[in-house]
Amino acid sequence: MDWLNDNIKAPDDFFYKKALARQSLLTKPPGSLGLLEDIAVRLASMQKTETPSLERIWVSVFAADHGIAAESVSAFPQVVTSEMVKNFVHHGAAVNVLSRFVDAQFEVIDVGLLQAVNLDAIVADRAGNGTANFSKQAAMTETEMQTALTAGKSAAKRALAHGSQLFIGGEMGIANTTSASAIAIALTGLSVEQLTGAGTGLNDKAIQHKSKVIENALTLHQHSLDSAIKTLQYLGGFEIAALVGAYIFAAQQGLTILIDGFISSVAALLATSINPKVHNWFFYAHQSQEKGHQLVLQRLQARPLLQLDMRLGEASGAVAAVPLLQMACKLHNEMATFEQASITTH
Amino acid sequence: MDWLNDNIKAPDDFFYKKALARQSLLTKPPGSLGLLEDIAVRLASMQKTETPSLERIWVSVFAADHGIAAESVSAFPQVVTSEMVKNFVHHGAAVNVLSRFVDAQFEVIDVGLLQAVNLDAIVADRAGNGTANFSKQAAMTETEMQTALTAGKSAAKRALAHGSQLFIGGEMGIANTTSASAIAIALTGLSVEQLTGAGTGLNDKAIQHKSKVIENALTLHQHSLDSAIKTLQYLGGFEIAALVGAYIFAAQQGLTILIDGFISSVAALLATSINPKVHNWFFYAHQSQEKGHQLVLQRLQARPLLQLDMRLGEASGAVAAVPLLQMACKLHNEMATFEQASITTH
Repeated sequence: MDWLNDNIKAPDDFFYKKALARQSLLTKPPGSLGLLEDIAVRLASMQKTETPSLERIWVSVFAADHGIAAESVSAFPQVVTSEMVKNFVHHGAAVNVLSRFVDAQFEVIDVGLLQAVNLDAIVADRAGNGTANFSKQAAMTETEMQTALTAGKSAAKRALAHGSQLFIGGEMGIANTTSASAIAIALTGLSVEQLTGAGTGLNDKAIQHKSKVIENALTLHQHSLDSAIKTLQYLGGFEIAALVGAYIFAAQQGLTILIDGFISSVAALLATSINPKVHNWFFYAHQSQEKGHQLVLQRLQARPLLQLDMRLGEASGAVAAVPLLQMACKLHNEMATFEQASITTH
Repeated sequence: MDWLNDNIKAPDDFFYKKALARQSLLTKPPGSLGLLEDIAVRLASMQKTETPSLERIWVSVFAADHGIAAESVSAFPQVVTSEMVKNFVHHGAAVNVLSRFVDAQFEVIDVGLLQAVNLDAIVADRAGNGTANFSKQAAMTETEMQTALTAGKSAAKRALAHGSQLFIGGEMGIANTTSASAIAIALTGLSVEQLTGAGTGLNDKAIQHKSKVIENALTLHQHSLDSAIKTLQYLGGFEIAALVGAYIFAAQQGLTILIDGFISSVAALLATSINPKVHNWFFYAHQSQEKGHQLVLQRLQARPLLQLDMRLGEASGAVAAVPLLQMACKLHNEMATFEQASITTH
């Protein structure tokens, strides 16, 4: 897993400054396009160009099952992971509709469903038959984790081979907010209470049970969680590991990354803990309604673009934010300058 | 001006409930698409259909000059109003780029520039040669106000004739945040300090001066501001009156309206004060960085879709939010149901 620590370069400072200068010439009061200006300037520096664009969007949704589902921590039964994978393949899920809207290239990867779903359209890159129940033992072996991290790397490679300008990772895995909350608690030191939420729709009593499961698991593994990578191995999911691998490899290759919701942000937090400069290549799509997401975003010093009370995962919030990034590029490239428009500025 | 009080009907309750029921069948945890669900359901009830859509977007930008500009309340000279109108016509402004991106029909209306700009592409519907300086006298006569309100109504009529499914109003008028702040203070009873901001980019000292100008004008006119319509006449701008007229007429005709930033929200507040049910037809695009916008939105009980620190006006924030409304429709119409996708829900 040495590749995880390979260097991540900073976006280009020359084009950053050039883009910043261009923004000051456009026919608007300075700063009046707010975050859309920041987006364009950062994309210019990432793409090393005066005219950034986001025409080719890539969406990889990683799906895997979770042993912790046996502890009754989700509002939906475990079989829904595979059922939703089929729904992705048949273009019926939210992320499919949104991907069509922004004309994104979409793929779904089986990183470790309980049983493989044999459909041609699924990329099979399996690390196992679901993770182990982390309330009893480590979620995965080191080998399994390595396979899952590599599955993410492979997805980023496919995105690059396709000429993609933006990588979006999504996830599907019944019980994976339990895994993500446990990881976030271990990484941040914040409390179980602060970071454990309703997931797909638990009531208060069920959230209390989920919190207890997480608390016990954290106690069980307390002496093993001495690094981000160990935390991933003991508490993670295959799809979370795949996101971490995809983010780090995409950043190493200079591919811009758009982070989705709670699970993806926890994967982003793992990735930054492993290789801090990955952060330079992140945009944050939205703040979800999942309890704890805001705290994880704060830890990442993230300013998300949307606050629409979404809490679906599967990359849906990220794809919904794509038009904002595209509009930021268009504004940067196509607005007239004060000089071109003969506008008085003093 | 009797037409302003003509009845505004409520969106259709039958289709509201039908859409709400459909949302509960789609392959996602209930409520997990957040505001995107509310948008789809409201649009279904407005359009009286099970499958709402927003293919035909209409953008009218109303431009006018302000006598109050003589009091040095803007960071830009008054001539910029006309210069920006030319920029709109030549497709160089932010709103042009964004309108192109969402394929909106765009028009700019001269509701009262200091001098008419003679370009074919401008809709000339002039209420006067700019408003009077409202720190000295009423901004407009009743007749001028009537002309400006009707200019808005005419724009909404053109939108309807074009088969538009969404009306967006924008504004351009150097010094118009001064007018909008004064109106907002008069309507809400909030303080000058709370509602007076930087506009296109004033520093603190200049904001203090602007506040003083507003305070004096409010004192001068205090006995005349006994209704929303009088407040508009004494403190308003022609483009603000046009927005009020457009909003009320669009709502009377059952055309959905998307509110832009601070000026447009103040026009929305005037419109709801004149004909309260106009509110049923509003969506709020964004919360701008202009001081006071949040307070005006609160008064309107609005939940804006975007918080991107934009503060440009000219409908830019509203057009930037259009893809979210469109995605909400697509999700509602195109997602598979649990039954179609054979997903276990218990």
